[in-house]
Amino acid sequence: MTDFNIATMAQKAKQASRVAAQLNSSEKNALLNDIATAIENNSDAIIKENSKDIAAGREKGLSQAMLDRLVLTDKGIKDMSSAIREIVALTDPVGDIDKLSLRPNGIQVGKMRIPLGVIAMIYEARPNVTAEAAALCIKSGNAVILRGGSEAIHSNLAIAHCLHQVLTTHNVDEHIVSVIPDTSRSVIEQLLQQSDTIDLVIPRGGEGLIRYVSENSRIPVIQHYKGVCHLYIDKYADLDKAINILVNGKTQKPSACNAFETVLVHSDISERFLPLAAKALNDAAQVKVHACQNSVGFFPNAELATEEDYQAEYLAQEIAVKVVSSFDTAISHINQFTSDHTEVIISQDISRSQKFIRQINSSVVMVNASSRFSDGNQLGLGSEIGISTSKLHAYGPMGLEALTTEKFVVFGDGQVRL
Amino acid sequence: MTDFNIATMAQKAKQASRVAAQLNSSEKNALLNDIATAIENNSDAIIKENSKDIAAGREKGLSQAMLDRLVLTDKGIKDMSSAIREIVALTDPVGDIDKLSLRPNGIQVGKMRIPLGVIAMIYEARPNVTAEAAALCIKSGNAVILRGGSEAIHSNLAIAHCLHQVLTTHNVDEHIVSVIPDTSRSVIEQLLQQSDTIDLVIPRGGEGLIRYVSENSRIPVIQHYKGVCHLYIDKYADLDKAINILVNGKTQKPSACNAFETVLVHSDISERFLPLAAKALNDAAQVKVHACQNSVGFFPNAELATEEDYQAEYLAQEIAVKVVSSFDTAISHINQFTSDHTEVIISQDISRSQKFIRQINSSVVMVNASSRFSDGNQLGLGSEIGISTSKLHAYGPMGLEALTTEKFVVFGDGQVRL
Repeated sequence: MTDFNIATMAQKAKQASRVAAQLNSSEKNALLNDIATAIENNSDAIIKENSKDIAAGREKGLSQAMLDRLVLTDKGIKDMSSAIREIVALTDPVGDIDKLSLRPNGIQVGKMRIPLGVIAMIYEARPNVTAEAAALCIKSGNAVILRGGSEAIHSNLAIAHCLHQVLTTHNVDEHIVSVIPDTSRSVIEQLLQQSDTIDLVIPRGGEGLIRYVSENSRIPVIQHYKGVCHLYIDKYADLDKAINILVNGKTQKPSACNAFETVLVHSDISERFLPLAAKALNDAAQVKVHACQNSVGFFPNAELATEEDYQAEYLAQEIAVKVVSSFDTAISHINQFTSDHTEVIISQDISRSQKFIRQINSSVVMVNASSRFSDGNQLGLGSEIGISTSKLHAYGPMGLEALTTEKFVVFGDGQVRL
Repeated sequence: MTDFNIATMAQKAKQASRVAAQLNSSEKNALLNDIATAIENNSDAIIKENSKDIAAGREKGLSQAMLDRLVLTDKGIKDMSSAIREIVALTDPVGDIDKLSLRPNGIQVGKMRIPLGVIAMIYEARPNVTAEAAALCIKSGNAVILRGGSEAIHSNLAIAHCLHQVLTTHNVDEHIVSVIPDTSRSVIEQLLQQSDTIDLVIPRGGEGLIRYVSENSRIPVIQHYKGVCHLYIDKYADLDKAINILVNGKTQKPSACNAFETVLVHSDISERFLPLAAKALNDAAQVKVHACQNSVGFFPNAELATEEDYQAEYLAQEIAVKVVSSFDTAISHINQFTSDHTEVIISQDISRSQKFIRQINSSVVMVNASSRFSDGNQLGLGSEIGISTSKLHAYGPMGLEALTTEKFVVFGDGQVRL
């Protein structure tokens, strides 16, 4: 790709972002509906390009798990289209004016929601991110630059082809969506320098990728390293709820970042709770347990937990257990080991529940509910573009609103400052 | 300062930030009232330390303007206390829960406002920033690390002494406020690496400082390079309003970042507007004019404007003038030269006013009002901690709310994900 220049691509994206920002919701929805249809209509071509990625992946010796994430079937294509049509159904936040107030001198001051401008997505494997991220950015009035992994390059370009076809048919600047054709690592380095044209970088992938992007970017980055989610079983817990939520949060999808990794149990209730937990975790998924000295006896085959266990994101049917002598000890443990993702208290006591909500400042804090609800869709945002575990700009699952910001708007009638 | 270690200071600030986050509004207001009183009571001591800075500044050959900003008088001390008491009167945003909605499965989902954690302020000259920034951070439940300029070090430490006295008397962790005693540049470099403990950096000062901080920080930075504010006189402008706003926005305080630097005039109205503008600008402050070929004839002594003039932040009684042939040309000019600070349209036409508001995405966009209102206090935020001209996290003048973020809170009754 001798002609390829990332700075030029970013400049074109910036120009296109002005066009994207001015599209109204009907125009954006028309684009998205046609993109969903184009992806379905080009199903064969996309699958053919995808098979090249699969073949190359096999040759490179990618793991079966990686290949599974990479492969696109007819059903995969249909899911992609459905995901885009779900974005059509979401409310467009752009242009909303909030908090319009009258100042003493008669000027009206409000805040209007506007797109961020140009978003760069850097991601691995799954080619469906190409379609869904583009759709979310279009719906929120942004331009987007997509840099998928080299292992999915043929699939990504085939999907991008559908997107560009539709943009061109609608006479809309096709640079609203750009897919970087260069799969070298150095292109990421260059991309991360374009702070004059790109407004936000969202990396999605392993901790290594996110750390690399954060450390090398001149552009603001949404960070999401890992999810070490805690479940605290208070002395006033309803044990049925506690067991159901423990089993659901740990075993339903252990590879998800919103799965529990550690359960803390108040010592006053541990002798009643732990035998039930041992049985339930074993029955549900033969969960491997790393337990503290005060709890290890309750779990057949448990290992004694180390400091590393309380830092671990197992992403597997595996959990760390610790008995805590008080509510405050539980809070301290969570504050020490939190990844700022999701923490849950099980308690029937309203004071302690409120205290937990106030004292834990992770991005999602729950009372008597499964951590598996910590997800844009479940929390009511619709599709999510990522999860932020750093507090700037967005915190927690990010939907359309997180792809926008607010400017001040002032309506006067000739007022000047005295 | 052989013992001084920035990483240790930042860790202590992070621990203290947990204390700050849990203080309720009454506790925080009691602290702030006592701080205001302590500063007044220690007026003599602060002024004595300030005189050391003034003496050192004179010796170093600081400009009179710099010395003026540095000097603290009895009145300056009173103003500082008043500013802190005004912050007491502001509404505390921490703990507010917004948008609490019921999901189909019965879980309640809302967003709770929480402090960011640890804020680092890097600033120059004015010692009153030490007191005001600390007060804003305390009120919003954050810990703060202050790094003022070396020229104000004695004043800053004397003010910090009052703050620490009050924190200690109230039995509150004094590390909520830290003043860096080391005035070397290398300490800023180290400070900007503490991304595990510091959540946000706010630089306040010249473009050089802000650029240095942005380029060297691992921590998110609020950027505010300059204010090249545009005034667009539409063909449907009310000329009285246009002239009043031009004169106010340009001449009232030209050293402010919200002063006008360029006025764009629709060609249909230029022959009526320009002679009035020439007279008004000259009468008000003998404003120096850099005008385009189509307008230069209207201004006695005007120079022909160059490309640089349209990029300039004069910060003086000086302005660039350009006649534009259409509304769209005005929009293009602004989009090309904007610093994303403040832009104003003067028009009686509602469609064109609305279009301006929609098409210009600067942080503050106004219709028929002076750019001088682009200020936290004038816009109703109370005191401002800074202005952001980048879209992430905050955009425009930043008050207490910009020092907070929102976490998700979920109230369930045993729900699990199906």
